[in-house]
Amino acid sequence: MATVVFSGGVGGSRFLSGLCRVMDQKDITVISNIGDDTEFYGLYVCPDIDIVLYTLAGRINPKTGWGLEGDTFQVLDALKKLGHPCWFNLGDQDLATHLHRTMRLKEGWPLSKVTAELARLNGLELTVLPSTDQRVETRFDTPMGDMPFQEYMVKHRWQVDIEKIRFVGAETASPAPGVLEALESAERIILAPSNPYISIGAILAVPGIREALERAKCPVIAVSPIVGGKAIKGPAARLLEQFGQPVSPVGVARVYQGLVSHMVIDNADRELAGQLEAMGIVCGVTDTMMDSFPRKEALARFVLEQK
Amino acid sequence: MATVVFSGGVGGSRFLSGLCRVMDQKDITVISNIGDDTEFYGLYVCPDIDIVLYTLAGRINPKTGWGLEGDTFQVLDALKKLGHPCWFNLGDQDLATHLHRTMRLKEGWPLSKVTAELARLNGLELTVLPSTDQRVETRFDTPMGDMPFQEYMVKHRWQVDIEKIRFVGAETASPAPGVLEALESAERIILAPSNPYISIGAILAVPGIREALERAKCPVIAVSPIVGGKAIKGPAARLLEQFGQPVSPVGVARVYQGLVSHMVIDNADRELAGQLEAMGIVCGVTDTMMDSFPRKEALARFVLEQK
Repeated sequence: MATVVFSGGVGGSRFLSGLCRVMDQKDITVISNIGDDTEFYGLYVCPDIDIVLYTLAGRINPKTGWGLEGDTFQVLDALKKLGHPCWFNLGDQDLATHLHRTMRLKEGWPLSKVTAELARLNGLELTVLPSTDQRVETRFDTPMGDMPFQEYMVKHRWQVDIEKIRFVGAETASPAPGVLEALESAERIILAPSNPYISIGAILAVPGIREALERAKCPVIAVSPIVGGKAIKGPAARLLEQFGQPVSPVGVARVYQGLVSHMVIDNADRELAGQLEAMGIVCGVTDTMMDSFPRKEALARFVLEQK
Repeated sequence: MATVVFSGGVGGSRFLSGLCRVMDQKDITVISNIGDDTEFYGLYVCPDIDIVLYTLAGRINPKTGWGLEGDTFQVLDALKKLGHPCWFNLGDQDLATHLHRTMRLKEGWPLSKVTAELARLNGLELTVLPSTDQRVETRFDTPMGDMPFQEYMVKHRWQVDIEKIRFVGAETASPAPGVLEALESAERIILAPSNPYISIGAILAVPGIREALERAKCPVIAVSPIVGGKAIKGPAARLLEQFGQPVSPVGVARVYQGLVSHMVIDNADRELAGQLEAMGIVCGVTDTMMDSFPRKEALARFVLEQK
């Protein structure tokens, strides 16, 4: 069954690693957030795409959820000595990916083609698509002024108030080849437990993608990234609060209003199922924690059962 | 005494490391060959400049004469797995230099300014100038067709016949800022024991540099890279033979005809001193092997005594 998954980085990739174990990889199309993409040392870095590729290839550093297991930091150490700011941890093997991608982009390849090549080189059979081949950059208005994504996320560890999220370049972007086709022929669309504002939000900011979700006739299933009033990882809870939403699956559902037909929430939030049903959303309740392969598989199976 | 040294890579840097121990670094200006410069993985690599910087900073790998001591090859190994040809050994710390240089060039810095910065970052006090800030590329006509420098030198280990050496871009290049000024105010000019055709030849190919040597009033002293009918390193002997010159200091002197007033040759070639004197060249005979610091220092002192 053709399944499309909207994904950010760590949460999305964990969900996908379960999904790949319970269905044929070839039937999965991932639409990846590229709003976090940035240049470091002249190299084009796609953090969310790489987290997905590395995770599914079994190469991810399981302690951090990003970067490669056993990677070294020789280049970064040397760059530090040359006076470069090094708050973004790029390992040596990871740098090879960025060198490769940057070379391809310079040769004129669109990002979608480079991403397909990297998926193949990582031995993967699913389709990984960037939301767009154009540059759409997530930036924040903060009390400290305009701030790019990685500075907010990694340098300041998201301990900064957000006044506004902007997706710079989105107005003139168009979905990458295959994105709309995948959405139109999908038998289900899953919004992975990623940040609804930033990760999924940046995908939805590309004109045509939100509209495709709105008119989708298949189930559109969001897995809540909020469990028991907290985000599993990252700033989702803080952002919901700042934008005046409850820090709960109900807040997430409000961000996704008009887009999702189904929601999968954690047992801890069982009492919210009624509120979600009242919003017209079919609600599935299960264990959504993904700290082991059996739990990841069970969650993926549960999501696939939503009809 | 203001001293200018024309230098290629390994031989030139070894000579310079002796020179730096017997005179004030601040009085030395190196004019470096950039004909070997090339791009690997989208990064701009200056092999001869880097060998000079790394050697004088005491960071060079003493076993190879290039690359950094104790460097690792994590990035290269990962690039290999991504399908890239990896016949040019770029270490991880070395890559940081190339990333840094490439960033600076993209920011619009001329190569001379980046080189000065890298010299400072390596703790050096001498002046290192590229022959030119423009791109001048050494290429070869061979029976296998047109061949770029590093392919000839590293991939084929110079076991290829050379029909013609070309310095592509030289016609429209001009000396880097400081080159002509250094030559005009020099109290001596030294052609280091580097390849006369390739390393020194590529410097002389930049319009204005050969002319500045021709009209120099100070001693212009070439240290022969040929000893006892052999090149210490690299293809100098093979090239002299192919271009119909004797494989000896006399062959080197013919390549430098009209440019040098002095030559320093090895004790092994003592009997050629007369021939050189007959060519109007003042000839100094000494031990020119540079396999230890005392020998390097002694050679440097001997060269400084040539009047």
